[in-house]
Amino acid sequence: MRVINFNPGPAGLPLPALERARDELLDFQGSGMSVMEHSHRGKEYEAVHDEAISLLTELLGIPATHQVLFLTGGASQQFAQVPMNFLTPDTGADYLMTGVWSEKAFEEAKYYGKPRVAATTVQPDKHYTRVPRQDELKLDAKAAYVHLTSNNTIYGTQWHTFPDVGNVPLVADMSSDFLWKRIDVSRFGLIYAGAQKNLGPSGVTLVVADKAFIARGRKDIPKFFRYTTHAENNSLYNTPPTFAIYLVRNVLAWMKGLGGLEQMERQNREKAALLYGAIDRNSGFYRAPVERESRSVMNVVFHLPSEELNAAFVAEAKKAGMVGLKGHRTAGGIRVSTYNAVTVENVRTLATFMDHFVKTRG
Amino acid sequence: MRVINFNPGPAGLPLPALERARDELLDFQGSGMSVMEHSHRGKEYEAVHDEAISLLTELLGIPATHQVLFLTGGASQQFAQVPMNFLTPDTGADYLMTGVWSEKAFEEAKYYGKPRVAATTVQPDKHYTRVPRQDELKLDAKAAYVHLTSNNTIYGTQWHTFPDVGNVPLVADMSSDFLWKRIDVSRFGLIYAGAQKNLGPSGVTLVVADKAFIARGRKDIPKFFRYTTHAENNSLYNTPPTFAIYLVRNVLAWMKGLGGLEQMERQNREKAALLYGAIDRNSGFYRAPVERESRSVMNVVFHLPSEELNAAFVAEAKKAGMVGLKGHRTAGGIRVSTYNAVTVENVRTLATFMDHFVKTRG
Repeated sequence: MRVINFNPGPAGLPLPALERARDELLDFQGSGMSVMEHSHRGKEYEAVHDEAISLLTELLGIPATHQVLFLTGGASQQFAQVPMNFLTPDTGADYLMTGVWSEKAFEEAKYYGKPRVAATTVQPDKHYTRVPRQDELKLDAKAAYVHLTSNNTIYGTQWHTFPDVGNVPLVADMSSDFLWKRIDVSRFGLIYAGAQKNLGPSGVTLVVADKAFIARGRKDIPKFFRYTTHAENNSLYNTPPTFAIYLVRNVLAWMKGLGGLEQMERQNREKAALLYGAIDRNSGFYRAPVERESRSVMNVVFHLPSEELNAAFVAEAKKAGMVGLKGHRTAGGIRVSTYNAVTVENVRTLATFMDHFVKTRG
Repeated sequence: MRVINFNPGPAGLPLPALERARDELLDFQGSGMSVMEHSHRGKEYEAVHDEAISLLTELLGIPATHQVLFLTGGASQQFAQVPMNFLTPDTGADYLMTGVWSEKAFEEAKYYGKPRVAATTVQPDKHYTRVPRQDELKLDAKAAYVHLTSNNTIYGTQWHTFPDVGNVPLVADMSSDFLWKRIDVSRFGLIYAGAQKNLGPSGVTLVVADKAFIARGRKDIPKFFRYTTHAENNSLYNTPPTFAIYLVRNVLAWMKGLGGLEQMERQNREKAALLYGAIDRNSGFYRAPVERESRSVMNVVFHLPSEELNAAFVAEAKKAGMVGLKGHRTAGGIRVSTYNAVTVENVRTLATFMDHFVKTRG
């Protein structure tokens, strides 16, 4: 029996996407072999690869100015690959600091240029409870790019309106909230996202790049690390992670069948309302550290009155078939990750459990 | 029905490894979720991760001086990551040139230091038909490392004895012949291999690194690109490609069950003998361009008397249930890739077909 999976990533995948993979794991479309045993240069795999790109383009409304790439190494590799492509020792980039992941991205940029903190909401205890407001940004018009983390899995904060950064290219790590709703892709120089939250298994990184922006990237870096190399070769310069891309294709096809990103957004807003509703009506028991306007729709973070109660909550939820609720080690408490594959029903079960837990243990 | 798969990579996988994946794709060991939906920091996945490492350590006889890493980006990323770690603008490394892949590795090294061609067997037509002899190597005792490609998938050549490079660390791209037999790991500073030939699906790169060698790597490069970062974190610094590693674990468990690398070597030598035997006894029809002492046990390359006959061979073999036989576009002809998952029976079927083809079309 499948459990209700609130894992922060790698996270639960839609059952139909997994069932499709299982049913054809030994024999892909009558070809006599698994999709992962096909050549990445054969027509069977290329059809999957191209379908994944076209589904993503359609779902997100990616304009012709931008291109989809499949890379590897997750966001952690992008933390280094972005500055490698766009910085020189004398150029700067503006980083908007909203948590552990933006800090890591900032540190890696130092090896290539002069990253600047253009805004930070860090508190004296080193934690973060919101994203910056537009009037708090101190942007440099000469920066090579502005970098932000659209959603902070650890602290449960999210940018609900992307900042105006003028003519400087905006680079966004969307690993934990890519494809939860439509966005205006034309506003971004580069978007990157590890697949293992909303999109598929770990092992593939989705990049949506402004072709003109990446064309200005450095040419004196290894061919493998240039975004243009992968753009020019439709992400087939080297052998891509074919099975991970195939699973992303399955997830994208499932999303489209369900009604696309409009439906995803509706469901995700409903899930978030259920959880924040349960927190707010029991606010004497559940404490949400995040400021209201920065509350994440993807990762809902809260604390019970004691460590013992946090632990009891996780243990009793597990008995009720719900797993993945323990908060990140740096933030503690409870974290509910409600990526696209988590259903409204799953979340309703948890919200009911939360009310019940207050009655019995509050 | 499954076909006989001679693909050069991604390549066929052992059926038991795939069946195991299929049977537990929706529910891994009664946990109520797929292994790819588990956290990479949870005990269920970590057991798989650690088992893959211990199986590899046992099968290959990896000494305590060396460590197994799971990285991504395939050999193409290693072409750049090796010199990034070990070269400076003023230091050199010796490259032994035996084909397209060593040429690519050499080109990427130029962005970090001064790679030197310490030996090459390139011919006037730009092709390669053998690997260098020991007496042809012009090694620099001050090189940061010596780099070689152990097996050349495109040309079908292979180092059967690794060269003596003195006290300079030997770095080997073993993407296409890793784990076909036991080797003396202690002779290598670093071994890297994309998984998609002998080991698993594309999307994970196996590295076996001498701990003392990687400890001498540069510290002024991004944390993500340092081998030491991944060594210190047991390849869990970032989210690894968990499902690809799980499949590698399944393949390694299958190898061990079959009798380990002694059995793999026996089978691979038998397969090579069957194919080169069919070529040699029909040498008026099948032409093997590779010099005898460099013939690869993994990729057997030959040409029929005309392009029409090459094409007819591929087409008729396909009708007989055998696929993946077309030579690489730069080399032409026929290429039979006989990685570990290809059985002796599969190869016997092809050798019989080869004899029959000569009789009917020769």
